[in-house]
Amino acid sequence: VHVSLHIFSEGMRIFIAVGHRATTSPNFSLDDIPGTSGRLDILCRCVNAAFVLSHGIRKDVNVFLVLCGGAMPKTICLKGIELKHLNPDERTTAALLKRALAIPTTHDWSKSTPGIYARTGSLAELLQDFKHMRLLYLREDGDDIRGICKANLCGNSVFILGDHLGMNPEEEILIEKAGYKVISVGPTSLHADHCIVLINYELDRLERDESV
Amino acid sequence: VHVSLHIFSEGMRIFIAVGHRATTSPNFSLDDIPGTSGRLDILCRCVNAAFVLSHGIRKDVNVFLVLCGGAMPKTICLKGIELKHLNPDERTTAALLKRALAIPTTHDWSKSTPGIYARTGSLAELLQDFKHMRLLYLREDGDDIRGICKANLCGNSVFILGDHLGMNPEEEILIEKAGYKVISVGPTSLHADHCIVLINYELDRLERDESV
Repeated sequence: VHVSLHIFSEGMRIFIAVGHRATTSPNFSLDDIPGTSGRLDILCRCVNAAFVLSHGIRKDVNVFLVLCGGAMPKTICLKGIELKHLNPDERTTAALLKRALAIPTTHDWSKSTPGIYARTGSLAELLQDFKHMRLLYLREDGDDIRGICKANLCGNSVFILGDHLGMNPEEEILIEKAGYKVISVGPTSLHADHCIVLINYELDRLERDESV
Repeated sequence: VHVSLHIFSEGMRIFIAVGHRATTSPNFSLDDIPGTSGRLDILCRCVNAAFVLSHGIRKDVNVFLVLCGGAMPKTICLKGIELKHLNPDERTTAALLKRALAIPTTHDWSKSTPGIYARTGSLAELLQDFKHMRLLYLREDGDDIRGICKANLCGNSVFILGDHLGMNPEEEILIEKAGYKVISVGPTSLHADHCIVLINYELDRLERDESV
């Protein structure tokens, strides 16, 4: 069943994580995720970082995982408002992604489990969907997130993160063409999942300060 | 082989994470860590958060995991300066902890794999070891970490974190007796591993600002 996916809504936090070797097939082993899935474990940790709170999950977050480790790239969407069965451990998340990779995909979104959708398509298609949004691309040489004013950070922002391989030149050009701003989260080079924890933290603080 | 463990040194970051139901036995399944180990997965993610950088691990970090889910509590120490075989995924970390739980333990530290040590003993013994250090206890109602000056945050600090169960009244009393300060990392109630990411981040920023 194809679905029309409302991926924008005011005040959402959107994270895009690109897995350059991440498998598009469900035929990986949950007993060796790093070794058999093209490092889907990295993306599982990004999902945890984006959604998991001490008591519950963040409903105002959507995550898009771009999986490039197959003949045809796939994108998986996780919508916080609908998401079910997400546990903080890596294996449970990998099992949810495995199910999403097992459904037949076209260029339209197809539903897997609650809040999880999949389609064929790469970063190019996804950036096309987000062309009216503010794109913030995380890279070590970017402007410090803490120096960016709230108006340029909160609301309608899409945060784009690479995996351990960074972005390739084609992707850099794509992101540049889409009109982006390069930001960084401080002095230390970190994994994508830790960057997502820090972005959520900075946004939480900014939004709290408004409500005071 | 018992070893004398130099767990203090100037400028180290020390994290204590308490697993109230975490198993002290190696007889858990790596295929179902949350379900068979008393939520050792939580502590595995704390280890990742404490050590893992984009390229390498933090050598200035020591982590102590207090495992209370057995007849006799155990403590596992991971020393950044010596640590080997640590990968970012949860299962690899759990496998290292499994090995550490398999070695015979006494009240003295015994070495497992490089940089990983184990002994019997609970939070009480560990706080005794740290009685000359600055204890910073993470709790939602604590003082905002961002309002604490660098002199009271960096160097000789021990950060104490609970798991999903928080601390029990006996532990609260123990920590209070040891002379602590309650701090928090912002407005949102987060898992221990995310808190560790944020503490590393705030300390990285403070230390960078000095070096500028």
